Amino acid sequence: MGIYKDIESNVRGYCRSFPVTFKTAKNALLTDDQGTEYIDFLGGAGTLNYGHNNPKFKEALIEYIESDGITHGLDMHTEAKGAFLETFRDLILEPRDMNYKVQFTGPTGTNAVEAALKIVRMNTGRSTVVSFTNGFHGVTQGAAAVTANGYYKKSIGMELPGVQFMPFDGYLGDFNTLSYFEKALKDKSSGLGHPAAVIVECIQGEGGLNVASKEWMQGLQDLCKRYEMLLIVDDIQAGCGRSGTFFSFEEFGIQPDVITLSKSLSGYGLPFALVLLKEELDTWSPGEHNGTFRGNNHAFVTARRALECYWADDTFSKSVQHKASIIRRRLKEIQAEHGGQLKHKGRGIMQGLECANGEVAGKITELAFTRGLIIETSGSDSQVVKILTPLTIEEDQLLKGLKILEACIGDVMAEQISKAS
Amino acid sequence: MGIYKDIESNVRGYCRSFPVTFKTAKNALLTDDQGTEYIDFLGGAGTLNYGHNNPKFKEALIEYIESDGITHGLDMHTEAKGAFLETFRDLILEPRDMNYKVQFTGPTGTNAVEAALKIVRMNTGRSTVVSFTNGFHGVTQGAAAVTANGYYKKSIGMELPGVQFMPFDGYLGDFNTLSYFEKALKDKSSGLGHPAAVIVECIQGEGGLNVASKEWMQGLQDLCKRYEMLLIVDDIQAGCGRSGTFFSFEEFGIQPDVITLSKSLSGYGLPFALVLLKEELDTWSPGEHNGTFRGNNHAFVTARRALECYWADDTFSKSVQHKASIIRRRLKEIQAEHGGQLKHKGRGIMQGLECANGEVAGKITELAFTRGLIIETSGSDSQVVKILTPLTIEEDQLLKGLKILEACIGDVMAEQISKAS
Amino acid sequence: MGIYKDIESNVRGYCRSFPVTFKTAKNALLTDDQGTEYIDFLGGAGTLNYGHNNPKFKEALIEYIESDGITHGLDMHTEAKGAFLETFRDLILEPRDMNYKVQFTGPTGTNAVEAALKIVRMNTGRSTVVSFTNGFHGVTQGAAAVTANGYYKKSIGMELPGVQFMPFDGYLGDFNTLSYFEKALKDKSSGLGHPAAVIVECIQGEGGLNVASKEWMQGLQDLCKRYEMLLIVDDIQAGCGRSGTFFSFEEFGIQPDVITLSKSLSGYGLPFALVLLKEELDTWSPGEHNGTFRGNNHAFVTARRALECYWADDTFSKSVQHKASIIRRRLKEIQAEHGGQLKHKGRGIMQGLECANGEVAGKITELAFTRGLIIETSGSDSQVVKILTPLTIEEDQLLKGLKILEACIGDVMAEQISKAS
Amino acid sequence: MGIYKDIESNVRGYCRSFPVTFKTAKNALLTDDQGTEYIDFLGGAGTLNYGHNNPKFKEALIEYIESDGITHGLDMHTEAKGAFLETFRDLILEPRDMNYKVQFTGPTGTNAVEAALKIVRMNTGRSTVVSFTNGFHGVTQGAAAVTANGYYKKSIGMELPGVQFMPFDGYLGDFNTLSYFEKALKDKSSGLGHPAAVIVECIQGEGGLNVASKEWMQGLQDLCKRYEMLLIVDDIQAGCGRSGTFFSFEEFGIQPDVITLSKSLSGYGLPFALVLLKEELDTWSPGEHNGTFRGNNHAFVTARRALECYWADDTFSKSVQHKASIIRRRLKEIQAEHGGQLKHKGRGIMQGLECANGEVAGKITELAFTRGLIIETSGSDSQVVKILTPLTIEEDQLLKGLKILEACIGDVMAEQISKAS
Repeated sequence: MGIYKDIESNVRGYCRSFPVTFKTAKNALLTDDQGTEYIDFLGGAGTLNYGHNNPKFKEALIEYIESDGITHGLDMHTEAKGAFLETFRDLILEPRDMNYKVQFTGPTGTNAVEAALKIVRMNTGRSTVVSFTNGFHGVTQGAAAVTANGYYKKSIGMELPGVQFMPFDGYLGDFNTLSYFEKALKDKSSGLGHPAAVIVECIQGEGGLNVASKEWMQGLQDLCKRYEMLLIVDDIQAGCGRSGTFFSFEEFGIQPDVITLSKSLSGYGLPFALVLLKEELDTWSPGEHNGTFRGNNHAFVTARRALECYWADDTFSKSVQHKASIIRRRLKEIQAEHGGQLKHKGRGIMQGLECANGEVAGKITELAFTRGLIIETSGSDSQVVKILTPLTIEEDQLLKGLKILEACIGDVMAEQISKAS
Repeated sequence: MGIYKDIESNVRGYCRSFPVTFKTAKNALLTDDQGTEYIDFLGGAGTLNYGHNNPKFKEALIEYIESDGITHGLDMHTEAKGAFLETFRDLILEPRDMNYKVQFTGPTGTNAVEAALKIVRMNTGRSTVVSFTNGFHGVTQGAAAVTANGYYKKSIGMELPGVQFMPFDGYLGDFNTLSYFEKALKDKSSGLGHPAAVIVECIQGEGGLNVASKEWMQGLQDLCKRYEMLLIVDDIQAGCGRSGTFFSFEEFGIQPDVITLSKSLSGYGLPFALVLLKEELDTWSPGEHNGTFRGNNHAFVTARRALECYWADDTFSKSVQHKASIIRRRLKEIQAEHGGQLKHKGRGIMQGLECANGEVAGKITELAFTRGLIIETSGSDSQVVKILTPLTIEEDQLLKGLKILEACIGDVMAEQISKAS
Repeated sequence: MGIYKDIESNVRGYCRSFPVTFKTAKNALLTDDQGTEYIDFLGGAGTLNYGHNNPKFKEALIEYIESDGITHGLDMHTEAKGAFLETFRDLILEPRDMNYKVQFTGPTGTNAVEAALKIVRMNTGRSTVVSFTNGFHGVTQGAAAVTANGYYKKSIGMELPGVQFMPFDGYLGDFNTLSYFEKALKDKSSGLGHPAAVIVECIQGEGGLNVASKEWMQGLQDLCKRYEMLLIVDDIQAGCGRSGTFFSFEEFGIQPDVITLSKSLSGYGLPFALVLLKEELDTWSPGEHNGTFRGNNHAFVTARRALECYWADDTFSKSVQHKASIIRRRLKEIQAEHGGQLKHKGRGIMQGLECANGEVAGKITELAFTRGLIIETSGSDSQVVKILTPLTIEEDQLLKGLKILEACIGDVMAEQISKAS
Repeated sequence: MGIYKDIESNVRGYCRSFPVTFKTAKNALLTDDQGTEYIDFLGGAGTLNYGHNNPKFKEALIEYIESDGITHGLDMHTEAKGAFLETFRDLILEPRDMNYKVQFTGPTGTNAVEAALKIVRMNTGRSTVVSFTNGFHGVTQGAAAVTANGYYKKSIGMELPGVQFMPFDGYLGDFNTLSYFEKALKDKSSGLGHPAAVIVECIQGEGGLNVASKEWMQGLQDLCKRYEMLLIVDDIQAGCGRSGTFFSFEEFGIQPDVITLSKSLSGYGLPFALVLLKEELDTWSPGEHNGTFRGNNHAFVTARRALECYWADDTFSKSVQHKASIIRRRLKEIQAEHGGQLKHKGRGIMQGLECANGEVAGKITELAFTRGLIIETSGSDSQVVKILTPLTIEEDQLLKGLKILEACIGDVMAEQISKAS
């Protein structure tokens, strides 16, 4: 592994927590070059909703490559792209009565967010975008500006204009954060001015699995309508089924003006991203937001297969909800065992336990790795142990992973107590 | 093709110039769904230096997929990544005495540029970056700020701090633009202040094939040293062999502080990008610049093969230079035929002809498409017809393409003259 | 009055509310060119704490002019300046155990605020300044950025970096706004980051006479200390005795890091401003913040006299407090008469009544003018009728003015009721 | 003088060069508290065009004060203000066929510049303002942004958006700087975009007495018209007669869209500033740009007298031009004496000699002070010895001052030579 120390930048991160060399992977199982197996509760940070190397997509991908199908297509029409668009329309948009245009951006989440920010500023002629405490949207300059965590901002090296932060649902305890937001919007002398838009995650992934309630999200959409702001839902991590439905906001009955998708969109872990925007907002000029890889045809192929295999009916959605309820039950039990020291967070297969601080959470995930479980932390102090396992994980693997997690928590907690006394 | 009009955003661009559906591709030949073949002088806008679906890489890629090698690896160690890094060190860095760290960013050029801008601001504690007239570096907020073309900036919707533009080599005719730059640096009251860095392309791709001379680039590096500014060379379009050497600045004998690579880096057209930074600039904290797809292992596999197949010795480099000289000779001849109305631009296999305006250039490329040649324009008025064909194009295909181009130019020019009279 | 319509800019404001031509003035009485007298409850928007043309200062000023004393001195030493500084030290700083440096800025409040913002950014190396809802600090670019009211920001024409707004004391009803501020400071992922400083008014003059409590201001100073932020108190409107003590924060027992003074500082209504800064913050280089009129010697002369005449002992301070209590009592009575429709605001001789909206408040002040009382509104909707009369007003004039005000309120309220029914 | 060291901020500047305490002044003569007299070639940095304590204005001012005329009037109508406006219209605007609105801003130059910047941004809906190398416009945030000298920008502590610098007339030697400006405007990919406006001084005072030629200024106005940018002339230092005519651009036959005036406007050294804006640009809402001291009535009184006494006919203008020619002749002679080591700069009574560097220039002014002459330097390295004496200086005083200056230069130059050998 000397090559990494020798020439890879210090910016590398995950490899420090999981210091082995991985060789192969299959659904929720990773294997390193020594043949050791690991249950994957990290799921590519939300990118592997359908597991590693899903055989249903793999076959289609190999077939496509063998046939010399277009690989790199800029934004030209290709058969693979056309087929993806049709499937996305038929299986995702139409059944949900969603009337949106699809914009392919550079194939990363942050690029989709950058496009979304342009869309709302261009269409309103205003520049302030309201983001929320603990929101994470990416690390390119525009996305980093609306990201709350200072860790990702300091290398920007400048104050960036065009963003104001508001407290997320629950940030001020029982105090309704939307009432503050509305007061500031109504009051021309609040300093907030008239924002162009709001950008929000329904479940804050990096921010620590904070969940917005149905009432809050509906209230937010309502606020946006009454104060003429556009609503962007960043569904990059919580979307593509992770919440139990394709979009994380489906159960709220809202229709955001702009939606960003990436991560699990290609199904196979291939770089892919898109923005959904309401038709009336599609005021782009040709090529105005471009990008070399906005036509990643391998991703079109696997993404289409993912939709066909998992979203043609609600079987998959129900199975995700079933697993989510298993996780919820187990985490609540673990929480109960350690009365007051852990707090259940999240929903869907995006749940976790908040520890007293990042040190405790880090010890748990470190210990878990030595026992064959890959799992990471999130939150502003990395204090939340976070389960983002593939939605397709076999139930016994899931239970096995939860068991390891429970044991690691137990051991770390016992150590904490013995240290304290 | 109704699906595109129905649900794809108006931002789509190339498909308007080449309104067919492409199905397969092989080296420099694209085939549409009607079986019509097109010679590819566009080359994925510089992404397909080794041609479409290069069989040498294809084989390796299929083998990797079939073996269930890690596809999506965040920034964890994988066999594919380690092998790429070793090959990159052995075939690219070491033979050139280049002592750099490799940073994998989100797999798009603009993301690499964003990381480069952070590196220079973080390391200097200053924020102004000098970019040049006609420079293009991407469309995310930070990269768009240093991009000269207003077309890509207007949707940002705000003035962005932290950038000043200077005239590129040749922008002021015979007047030495570096002498102006130096005067402004020396004069504490010039308004320029003390920039953190300079970002430059040796050959401006989108900007119209403007070429920086050896003297100018050496002078620029010298200026950077004397005035303590870091030098970023954006080699996203001109790199990976397009200029005739792996890096476009090799013949200048300079060593930039930061180098961005993307586009043809994966070899196969897969999304991939990296930043090379001098070791002393590698002050990143873990994960400070992150990104879901910074470990695109398919790209690691094909990128390694591309290095092994083409950069183990100088055979490929020489063949590129040979083809470049063919192109140069033909373009100079065409220029001579149309005395004063066309101007040769560029170097390497990144050459073209500047027309009187974008309308003329557009007519030429439009006509070319009807005759089986895919070629685009660049420049601030889209006035430069630009050849970016795969470096691996067969010589007869190259000649055939040039012939079509010559004829189209002839026809359009004749029409211009007849219209004028 | 045609000359104003003919050639004065539309930006003129007060003259629209009080459309006569004023000729002479004496303490709290203004006389127009028709000989009509008006009681002045506007007090030059807080500039005439010692009344119009205070005879004690007038004499000194005329004497100085007659002796050809230096009028315009840049920042050179002059007798008048030295004498002012000594008096300010002896009567203001030393008796209050205040160890500050005095910086003379351009002679306007906004210029003092601009200097204060530079001081805190320069000394911390950070750029975000936290300002509060309804805060007003001036209209030059830096000061306008920290001003909450969008009315003063829109002509800036750009989003400005470097400011975040927090809710002022009482803005969220019973919810302690400092608890939100502290949570956001503690949470590295709140979006707030680490501000350089906080700028605050103890009594928000333009913002609608919102008063910060002792506990809140002490808590704010404490927060600043614990989170290493500098505290700027903008005492331009509330200072120089208006609150009942020289500084508006004296009764809170706090010592801000930076204090801005202007408006009534010269005593005679002459342009004058200064910044007080703690000695360790005085890291200025010579002339780094300059300004042609930072040595307005006429103002030095009258300002010194004002200190000598009113601040050598606590007689004046007590008389202000006495008048303030008269005003408070009367306003509370008026409030009681109109149960629920008016709300008492403010403290010191900076009190008023909040009406249902700006229309009602505007009718009251308009009516008052026709009855010989000059009084203005403030607040984000101009909904607060605001008493800023000279602190030196004769008690019978004060009572007379209050009587007119009461009658006008009565009449407007009656009209409102009759309209509603 | 201990009081200054004790409690005045380190930001004080001029007093370091002229470390005495001044007591009285009369026209071009300053007297310190020891009775020592100094000839004033500094002229309040351009504020004392009519000399210190001009008896014609002094009388009117004392009379106004004695009559209890309104001193502080916000922007209400007062007799003094009306009279000033009428006189300004009759003696300045109408005779020059200038159809402008007058805006009174806070009474400092920087405030007038801030208002001008708002006017151009508000009216164009665009934000970039082009300023020039060595331009100086003030130190509040907006004005500092368009100021070229980094010394005044560093305490701002942030990169500010909305400004681009272009080379001033002569900055690139024989190369026509306007041709570069035009190329950048025409080229949509130059990075310049479409600026809202240009701000320029006809004679750069702080910047080192650089003079724009008639052709250049006419070309600049023409460029503004053709590219739809507004033209702001900052006439704060060069205006009010210093160039030989009331405005410094009169001989160019141009009519800027916006003009800023301050410094000598009040005539008596009292704080005063205004903006002239073409009628169609007067889109201000009431009070949108406000300021406590925008109605400094003492200044209205003296400013009116200045216009009546000096601008009712061209006598004064001619006398200024006569003195300017005396200065020019003498400076050219001194330049000739020191062949190649000094360079004549400037025009009107705003001329000087550029030395090899700031050290030499500083020695000259330092020596001059010891011989009874007050004179300062300007330029980015403080390398220009700058004559800004009152325009009303008696001819013998002028000659005496020039003689002292010549001798000091001679002595310093001799010392330089002896040191070098």
